[in-house]
Amino acid sequence: MIATQTLLDFFLETRTHTKTICKPLQIEDYVVQPIVDVSPPKWHLGHTTWFFEEFILKNQKGYKLFSDDFAFVFNSYYESVGKRVVRTDRGNLSRPTVAQVYAYRAYVTNALLEVLEKEITPEIEKLVTIGIHHEKQHQELLITDIKYILGNNPLMPEYGGGLRFRESVKNAQQWIHIPEGVYIIGHSGTDFCYDNELSQHKVYTHEYSISNNLVTNAEWIDFINDGGYNKTLLWHAEGWDWVNANGIKAPMYWHLVDNEWYQYTLEKGLGKIDQDAPVSHISYFEAFAYAQWKGLRLPTEFEWEIANKKFNWGERWEWTESAYLPYPGYMKEEGALGEYNGKFMVNQKVLRGGSVATSDKHTRHTYRNFFQTGLRWQFTGLRLAK
Amino acid sequence: MIATQTLLDFFLETRTHTKTICKPLQIEDYVVQPIVDVSPPKWHLGHTTWFFEEFILKNQKGYKLFSDDFAFVFNSYYESVGKRVVRTDRGNLSRPTVAQVYAYRAYVTNALLEVLEKEITPEIEKLVTIGIHHEKQHQELLITDIKYILGNNPLMPEYGGGLRFRESVKNAQQWIHIPEGVYIIGHSGTDFCYDNELSQHKVYTHEYSISNNLVTNAEWIDFINDGGYNKTLLWHAEGWDWVNANGIKAPMYWHLVDNEWYQYTLEKGLGKIDQDAPVSHISYFEAFAYAQWKGLRLPTEFEWEIANKKFNWGERWEWTESAYLPYPGYMKEEGALGEYNGKFMVNQKVLRGGSVATSDKHTRHTYRNFFQTGLRWQFTGLRLAK
Amino acid sequence: MIATQTLLDFFLETRTHTKTICKPLQIEDYVVQPIVDVSPPKWHLGHTTWFFEEFILKNQKGYKLFSDDFAFVFNSYYESVGKRVVRTDRGNLSRPTVAQVYAYRAYVTNALLEVLEKEITPEIEKLVTIGIHHEKQHQELLITDIKYILGNNPLMPEYGGGLRFRESVKNAQQWIHIPEGVYIIGHSGTDFCYDNELSQHKVYTHEYSISNNLVTNAEWIDFINDGGYNKTLLWHAEGWDWVNANGIKAPMYWHLVDNEWYQYTLEKGLGKIDQDAPVSHISYFEAFAYAQWKGLRLPTEFEWEIANKKFNWGERWEWTESAYLPYPGYMKEEGALGEYNGKFMVNQKVLRGGSVATSDKHTRHTYRNFFQTGLRWQFTGLRLAK
Amino acid sequence: MIATQTLLDFFLETRTHTKTICKPLQIEDYVVQPIVDVSPPKWHLGHTTWFFEEFILKNQKGYKLFSDDFAFVFNSYYESVGKRVVRTDRGNLSRPTVAQVYAYRAYVTNALLEVLEKEITPEIEKLVTIGIHHEKQHQELLITDIKYILGNNPLMPEYGGGLRFRESVKNAQQWIHIPEGVYIIGHSGTDFCYDNELSQHKVYTHEYSISNNLVTNAEWIDFINDGGYNKTLLWHAEGWDWVNANGIKAPMYWHLVDNEWYQYTLEKGLGKIDQDAPVSHISYFEAFAYAQWKGLRLPTEFEWEIANKKFNWGERWEWTESAYLPYPGYMKEEGALGEYNGKFMVNQKVLRGGSVATSDKHTRHTYRNFFQTGLRWQFTGLRLAK
Repeated sequence: MIATQTLLDFFLETRTHTKTICKPLQIEDYVVQPIVDVSPPKWHLGHTTWFFEEFILKNQKGYKLFSDDFAFVFNSYYESVGKRVVRTDRGNLSRPTVAQVYAYRAYVTNALLEVLEKEITPEIEKLVTIGIHHEKQHQELLITDIKYILGNNPLMPEYGGGLRFRESVKNAQQWIHIPEGVYIIGHSGTDFCYDNELSQHKVYTHEYSISNNLVTNAEWIDFINDGGYNKTLLWHAEGWDWVNANGIKAPMYWHLVDNEWYQYTLEKGLGKIDQDAPVSHISYFEAFAYAQWKGLRLPTEFEWEIANKKFNWGERWEWTESAYLPYPGYMKEEGALGEYNGKFMVNQKVLRGGSVATSDKHTRHTYRNFFQTGLRWQFTGLRLAK
Repeated sequence: MIATQTLLDFFLETRTHTKTICKPLQIEDYVVQPIVDVSPPKWHLGHTTWFFEEFILKNQKGYKLFSDDFAFVFNSYYESVGKRVVRTDRGNLSRPTVAQVYAYRAYVTNALLEVLEKEITPEIEKLVTIGIHHEKQHQELLITDIKYILGNNPLMPEYGGGLRFRESVKNAQQWIHIPEGVYIIGHSGTDFCYDNELSQHKVYTHEYSISNNLVTNAEWIDFINDGGYNKTLLWHAEGWDWVNANGIKAPMYWHLVDNEWYQYTLEKGLGKIDQDAPVSHISYFEAFAYAQWKGLRLPTEFEWEIANKKFNWGERWEWTESAYLPYPGYMKEEGALGEYNGKFMVNQKVLRGGSVATSDKHTRHTYRNFFQTGLRWQFTGLRLAK
Repeated sequence: MIATQTLLDFFLETRTHTKTICKPLQIEDYVVQPIVDVSPPKWHLGHTTWFFEEFILKNQKGYKLFSDDFAFVFNSYYESVGKRVVRTDRGNLSRPTVAQVYAYRAYVTNALLEVLEKEITPEIEKLVTIGIHHEKQHQELLITDIKYILGNNPLMPEYGGGLRFRESVKNAQQWIHIPEGVYIIGHSGTDFCYDNELSQHKVYTHEYSISNNLVTNAEWIDFINDGGYNKTLLWHAEGWDWVNANGIKAPMYWHLVDNEWYQYTLEKGLGKIDQDAPVSHISYFEAFAYAQWKGLRLPTEFEWEIANKKFNWGERWEWTESAYLPYPGYMKEEGALGEYNGKFMVNQKVLRGGSVATSDKHTRHTYRNFFQTGLRWQFTGLRLAK
Repeated sequence: MIATQTLLDFFLETRTHTKTICKPLQIEDYVVQPIVDVSPPKWHLGHTTWFFEEFILKNQKGYKLFSDDFAFVFNSYYESVGKRVVRTDRGNLSRPTVAQVYAYRAYVTNALLEVLEKEITPEIEKLVTIGIHHEKQHQELLITDIKYILGNNPLMPEYGGGLRFRESVKNAQQWIHIPEGVYIIGHSGTDFCYDNELSQHKVYTHEYSISNNLVTNAEWIDFINDGGYNKTLLWHAEGWDWVNANGIKAPMYWHLVDNEWYQYTLEKGLGKIDQDAPVSHISYFEAFAYAQWKGLRLPTEFEWEIANKKFNWGERWEWTESAYLPYPGYMKEEGALGEYNGKFMVNQKVLRGGSVATSDKHTRHTYRNFFQTGLRWQFTGLRLAK
């Protein structure tokens, strides 16, 4: 078969968008890794490129690796494809330079375009599609990592650039009621999805109600003012330890200036908090404690998926009460790609929806995002259920 | 109402059994805490006693605390009832002495008997019942902690004493088949259960099969011999880190002597492994990797509960694939007792069944035990599903 | 030669005194190791015994080891004589029991007495003498470790027993003036001393003055009240980090109760501070900061040794400004005994004198004690120079 | 007084040389901090500039700070002049950019030139001189930090640029004999020196011999081949722990390739070891163990200073056996400059001489360099004594 123009366009568009995200950066911004979860932007640029080289180009006759060393430098966690720089060391590497990484990108993009202009196998089509979605995932990580790098710098520079994030809209509070029953969960159809959404299956849910709105900054300030961060009984034991060990008193990027809450944002640097915007950059532990404080709870991922057509979503990744587990009948892919999702299915929570930083065409109503319970550098928020 | 003789007998029996477990110990054995999860036996003796004092006796008119300091020493994790010795420090306390702790036990037992011989409220009946079950839980911890203390001592002394653990029986392998459907889960009736089993509710399960047997030591040796501990792709990412950080190569208490596997047991000290006995002292990570290696999986806790009448259980706590989460409609108790279960409902896995170390009348088919995924000093094993 | 009655008496006296020190202990007190520097008393009992067995008895024809495992359990840091329990694990061993350790002591004492009643070589006489002094060193450690174990227990029990510690005497302040010149330093004569005192040699010192008194608790309270623990510039960089990392605000065992300073002592448990007594349980960092605050300095070990006949000493180990280094011409012993002193000659400070916990006939005016700069569970104090 | 042309030239020369060192760097190389001891080059550029601004310009009438935030970013350890970025975070700062730092340098250089072109006080002359020498110290750190950044990058790039390091010369082995006596130690005269060299004083030394040569790579290979890194008894206890905790088997930058030793150097990247060159990048622990292995010892800093006119020095910083301590009569400067040297006088060793990376006119025969005993990213070597 010949790659559809669509796939080729989708590929090019994605590759270009990654560069657009990085355009406002100074070279220095590409290099640092202030915490282990935040990778240097140049690493994201190299890693998304390496993915195409490793899983597709390397197997093409006549393809010559751009550099023998780059596999070592830009492999992330694929234990089955060789050694790699340990994750904590990514920010210690000044070389390859940003210019070299961009050269690597161009080289691989061109080589892949050549492949796509010829006849391709369904296997390659599938791998290219995965590679594109992989890069889209890293586009979101690029934005959140840039936010961390700039927002934790004592100079708190703005990000600048042309990217605009959606404005938030607050609607009148409603409780969407869903009757008990057996519902179908998971992805169907031939569109792209990740393996962790597959194996459509049934779940039974008791009746429940779910809010049409995300919790807002104004509501979160009420929680703070009521001493929410000091009330042991609202928290999981592990959450309470996390609060105390890290001295947590507010969401990430919040600063109390002259008794008023400010927030670092990419668009404006440090500025007053937008009261009506959905709260962001909170951990699962905080989301849970907030729900306890309200006498309510977080929805499960199934409750979210069943009801999602009845509310707006996509501004914040929404913490659910569901642990990240395989669906019934889930099968890991063979080989290295099997490391993509399955091996993280323990001690993490599912987040549903999407965020203002999520790339176009990347998320969907069956999409299962997942993070560890103490992480909050993503645009994470919460929606209540009862 | 007047406490039934049954309750009084149950109380006394339980208090006595705790002492029976400790009878073979030397005074020195009561004191040490070789790892944070293993508490000194004298701490268990004091803590189970403190529970009755704190939640019942303290509120009885005329009751005089045995000692003002003991609440500080023997509180475990109840953040809402005052300060406490941090958990890592329990093994640093030589005082109170073992004799003082036994005196404390006798004092509290007698005081509670006096209470039980008079008219009691349903509230007190409930609290005493909880206190008894709390002590039964600690009886199992006593046995596993003693095993750790003696089994990790370079002299590897036997435990001795009169306690006998059930022998294991291996049956012919069968796969129990359960059809799809909506099933009822959770405790009903008026017998005692913990709050985490309550709120009976429905779940839908697809059809599945579950083994009538636990995985045996012989089968585990096959896993080891096939390189199971070295095959990255069998493991969760977090499990793989755990294996490497701790140099795990076999279940806890296993020793390779002259190329043959030996095992420390309470009854015999170091001796050859019983091939047919169910494997024990494995972490969730290991249980999962084993199932992957077999091309099978662990059951969910619901699958286990639905099928449990069709197989023998009670020799090992069986790791399930289910994360420890609240049942729909779960309500934490008010106040300190609310800290009993709910606050641990994150980043742990449910274990079902019971073990050779579980006290009589303590477990049941709806009982939900839970531990973190890397722990293995309990008598933990696994049963496969598909 | 035949061992002099003196040596035999000295040996027996020493062995007996160790038991006297432990007499007031409960069995539980023998077992715990609350910090890595504090060893369980039963370990001291076993280790001082092992020393005689390892270095003398093992080489005697016909001697049978008390237990094959005890070398493993009671070796401390002699890397060259085999494996050992790592230091941090000493407090995790409930076995051997205290009774077994006392049996081991009796067995070895008797075996050594048999050796001493026959003709012995000078080599054995030397080794027995070292073994006696080694045990005397551990007698002091026993006292300081017992103090730590009881004094950090929330019940703060008194030590009891018959041991009485010398009372302190404060004299009128005088400055002893010593003219410049070349002085002789180090041990001479045939009496016992450690290898680190040997190789008598010359040092040049400029003129200096040294105080006849140790700094007292009353003076230390002035330092605290003047904010000494908060004034960065008084401290070494490493000392300042130590103060902050450990939240140090006063000497060890000091407690501020109702705005008045109390102190835990072995004799009285918690009681008001004796204002005139020399300050105790301070680190080198604190001693240095105090001297800076006074505009004075600590003496070098040479200044101390040259002047020591002109003042009273022996109540506190006195921190000096001297790093613990080999004397010119110092030669480590061959083999395991060479590990006794030489291998610690880096990153430690010399302390001179002796303390109320030092055993009779153990210290002398050339004795060089040494500890790391942040340790303070010994009876450590300071004397000023200028 | 008017600043001499010499001072002005010295200042300009120094400022220019710092830029020359950095010329071969890519922007990315300026940013990273792979270990805590290695600072990002742009931090050195900013910090040496901040020193002039903080201690001189800030007090000049009419001077306007280049940026209010830079004091926070570029202060290093001066606790007495305000808050600072913690040292471990230097490599997390992408801003200010390299271009901004160079602009800061130009701004401060010009402002200081203006000051120097007018009449200046002796105080300012002194501060400028200190600032110049401070920058020269950081020039050496720049070179060693660049070496660490490039030499630990998996691509091992050469440094390039025009800097040439002196070639090593090996002479026939001689032992320089020095008779016993009282010698004068320390700096005299009006030339610049640091406070730690002052207070000339007398020391007595016994007779000794000192080698005319540094230990070479060829000799070090003999030490490795004889198992030097595995022989416990050659090492200090703390050194032995250091070897094992860090898996040390050779000097830093050495790599065993096909059974032959290679070394990363700035000039050539990875290349075969020069057998005759003095060994470099070793810790004090290694230097000590080597001397033990030879049956010899390291010289004291006094022995080195007394004999240094009789041998060549300046290729390697030479570890001495002397702890870094104040000279008799040493007085810390008042205020922030007093933090320069005195507060490090504990748990470090003195190194004498200079290295191929030391800037011109920076070291001298009384110069006292000092580092902690486990550090080895400087050009450190050793000379033997007996």
